[in-house]
Amino acid sequence: MTEAPSHGLKARRLGIDTHAEPVVFLRKDSPVSRSEGFSPHSRILLSAGARQAIATLYQVENGILARDEAGLSNAAWHLLGLNEGDCIKARHAPPVASLSAMRGRIYGKAFDETTLHEIVSDIVAGRYSDIEIACFLTASAARPLSHAEICALTRAMVNTGDRLSWKAPLVADKHSVGGLPGNRTTPIVVSICAELGLVMPKTSSRAITSPAGTADMMETLAPVALGEDQIRAVVAQEGACIVWGGGIDISPADDILIGIERALDIDCEGQMIASVLSKKIAAGATHLVVDMPIGATAKVRTPAAARALSAGLEGVAKSFGLQIRVVPGEGTQPIGRGIGPALEARDVLSVLQGDKTAPQDLRFRALELAGALLEMSGKAGVGMGITMATTVLDNGQAWRKFQRICEAQGGMRTPPLAGFRKDLTATAEGIVTTMDNRRIARLAKLAGAPEDRAAGIEMHIRIGDAVARGTPICTLHAESAGELAYALAYADANADMFRITQP
Amino acid sequence: MTEAPSHGLKARRLGIDTHAEPVVFLRKDSPVSRSEGFSPHSRILLSAGARQAIATLYQVENGILARDEAGLSNAAWHLLGLNEGDCIKARHAPPVASLSAMRGRIYGKAFDETTLHEIVSDIVAGRYSDIEIACFLTASAARPLSHAEICALTRAMVNTGDRLSWKAPLVADKHSVGGLPGNRTTPIVVSICAELGLVMPKTSSRAITSPAGTADMMETLAPVALGEDQIRAVVAQEGACIVWGGGIDISPADDILIGIERALDIDCEGQMIASVLSKKIAAGATHLVVDMPIGATAKVRTPAAARALSAGLEGVAKSFGLQIRVVPGEGTQPIGRGIGPALEARDVLSVLQGDKTAPQDLRFRALELAGALLEMSGKAGVGMGITMATTVLDNGQAWRKFQRICEAQGGMRTPPLAGFRKDLTATAEGIVTTMDNRRIARLAKLAGAPEDRAAGIEMHIRIGDAVARGTPICTLHAESAGELAYALAYADANADMFRITQP
Repeated sequence: MTEAPSHGLKARRLGIDTHAEPVVFLRKDSPVSRSEGFSPHSRILLSAGARQAIATLYQVENGILARDEAGLSNAAWHLLGLNEGDCIKARHAPPVASLSAMRGRIYGKAFDETTLHEIVSDIVAGRYSDIEIACFLTASAARPLSHAEICALTRAMVNTGDRLSWKAPLVADKHSVGGLPGNRTTPIVVSICAELGLVMPKTSSRAITSPAGTADMMETLAPVALGEDQIRAVVAQEGACIVWGGGIDISPADDILIGIERALDIDCEGQMIASVLSKKIAAGATHLVVDMPIGATAKVRTPAAARALSAGLEGVAKSFGLQIRVVPGEGTQPIGRGIGPALEARDVLSVLQGDKTAPQDLRFRALELAGALLEMSGKAGVGMGITMATTVLDNGQAWRKFQRICEAQGGMRTPPLAGFRKDLTATAEGIVTTMDNRRIARLAKLAGAPEDRAAGIEMHIRIGDAVARGTPICTLHAESAGELAYALAYADANADMFRITQP
Repeated sequence: MTEAPSHGLKARRLGIDTHAEPVVFLRKDSPVSRSEGFSPHSRILLSAGARQAIATLYQVENGILARDEAGLSNAAWHLLGLNEGDCIKARHAPPVASLSAMRGRIYGKAFDETTLHEIVSDIVAGRYSDIEIACFLTASAARPLSHAEICALTRAMVNTGDRLSWKAPLVADKHSVGGLPGNRTTPIVVSICAELGLVMPKTSSRAITSPAGTADMMETLAPVALGEDQIRAVVAQEGACIVWGGGIDISPADDILIGIERALDIDCEGQMIASVLSKKIAAGATHLVVDMPIGATAKVRTPAAARALSAGLEGVAKSFGLQIRVVPGEGTQPIGRGIGPALEARDVLSVLQGDKTAPQDLRFRALELAGALLEMSGKAGVGMGITMATTVLDNGQAWRKFQRICEAQGGMRTPPLAGFRKDLTATAEGIVTTMDNRRIARLAKLAGAPEDRAAGIEMHIRIGDAVARGTPICTLHAESAGELAYALAYADANADMFRITQP
């Protein structure tokens, strides 16, 4: 089906962040809107020279655009590679073929390998609207993805992005299912494992909704925004790196799917498994340890959910020849004391430096994960992984390794300290019985994390601690008085995020 | 959970039509964005005095907004009842409670009456984002709604809008499942039934994606934008009306759900049944006839699908004490000759006036539907409905009734005739074997329908007709030379929308 020719429009960058969805804004009374019969929710094919993008249409009535202008969201602007004022054309988008398969899945027709590859390719190319992605995720949750479908989805996600390969028979990696503030084990695990001879080219993400991502934290200690060549040089020299993965386009579908899944707050387990494993497989990992905290306000809420997710991860990893070990753990409270990039970095340094006041929960969690990798890889005998890891941590080898990695990445830095600090204190005597990880994370963000690197929370208590009236619970760190006040107001209104029970 | 106090923002109307979804645009570097930690897809609670609305956030980087401004879509603007420059506040929206039930439904937990009422209330109040509505619809299609759930959804849709009641024991109504261009039987059916003593207060919609809605067509013959009091006066006098329903807020959830369902191009049968029946129940109907065209490019594609949908409609209607009769019919081609408001009005007039050249398919379809209503209501004996309807159509009584209804609505009008017309002709000899209803509707819209009342298509052939090279297939009508040219280009590129097979 051929379309009629379309009118030219002047492209205008509106600087609007609609996340991954390309959006075009057109005047309702523009010649093209009228002649094409565009209506709300229309999907529009935009063309700029040889480049094309499908965008969702929002019609505009008044003066923010001229009648011959097309306003574009950032996603649409980048897909089309535009310059201000470029001429673009707009017409109804032809049907996206893979959407029929998605609709069939709603009514029970299983996805096959080819179909999932087409769907994921279309999603990566921005050809699915957000509501279509919501439909895909919901259909995949209401009628759960089968093992074969999860494998096919994983493969599709791997194949639609970049892949890394390493001249090593064994490449170690680590993933945390997340949901706990703090819990910054990665630099410790990498330093221990690399010191003991494992190749561990670790790429991490920045925070999306949390108060810090591993990359944000690590950036207070060393440069992390390295290109692929620089990463390879660091790994060639030190056997490991701890860098931001955003410079490499690994499993680009993952970010898009997770963005919508998080907005819907639904769990599509099959998609989650494919997201985690596709990133690791594309990054060239052969041995993977998965940190899985379990707790009422963590991502995985019950031991039964943890068992089901572990079985799914193990089954799919096996199909790809990826060795995996899931390490379940307590997920009822933050791990480590700091929450926020610099505060978490301080915890990491204190553990690596063998500081007597270092947070022992963080230290032990890192040793457990490193130990699992050492056993899986055959570096340590069964049951001997933690002991081996403890040795190189306690004798300072891991700390020296970490310093060398930082130097190789461009030079070690000192994490900043916030200029505005204020203690929150217990308003009653009692025992700390529960903490709300989600509201604690929120509090750290209100204080300015992760944009303000020094901002966040320094915890002083753990569940089970006895407190008196006036005992410090935590210290808020902020880079401005306004943000400190703002976080304090939230903390006052939400004092029950730390539950203290009278004895 | 109480939130921290929030910063004031100056409201700015951006005139952006995002359909039903409230959207707020904020500068990424605004104090509130930073301190609240808003991110893409965040749901924001906006407050203006006592009024509140939940909106989806799009963050803006550059100059279309000042740092202290909040740009609002039309839906958000209206929900908050704002004036330019009003002060509004923005913070993270609290969780919408009914969303948990929606998420539970994904994993198989049935909706109950209370839950569905909450969900529909929240949707009507704009508290669901488009992706959340997509999730609701997909979950309701992947795990089909049960009879009890459809009844509860119907009741919720009735109860969240206005209701009409009539001082009559029997109130007739008509619905068309749609998908066929033309097929404008309503004015004929209403005139016949009202003349024979049925009370038939018919409200219709304007076109959303079609080249004409009944209200658009009727407006070329008489005023249709009447208030409730005016409608009651017309019905008191003539026993019937043919007006636009947009002035009365009947089943407001329907428009919102259908907007997303159509954008996704998925069928959620339970939702469709609830949409149709909720509108009729809320409008006070007791007897309903449903026109259901069946064809490859109609809404209902197969006889099996028609049987399933009919059974669903009948079962739910019964629970509400609504008498219903589904009249299946051929849906392979447009009904009547005209497509577009004025052209369809001309067909209606020619049938009512007993013109010998009137389209017989339209005439017969209207007689069938009127006959069914007359039999259901006991006005006609079984099998005698069509005969009775034919009598008042042929003797001119229905035509006089129609004129009186138009006068009561404010005075009869003459439909306009387009100034630019052009025949499309057959490019080869043969038999017309199929027509693509969707592309024919598209062609009429490209010519300017429904905004240009006189624009559209006048058909000259029907399936089965023999044509020679040069035989006129249809005439395009447009109000400007540009639109005519535009439609012609589309017709040239899509000549196969009328398939002519060589004998």
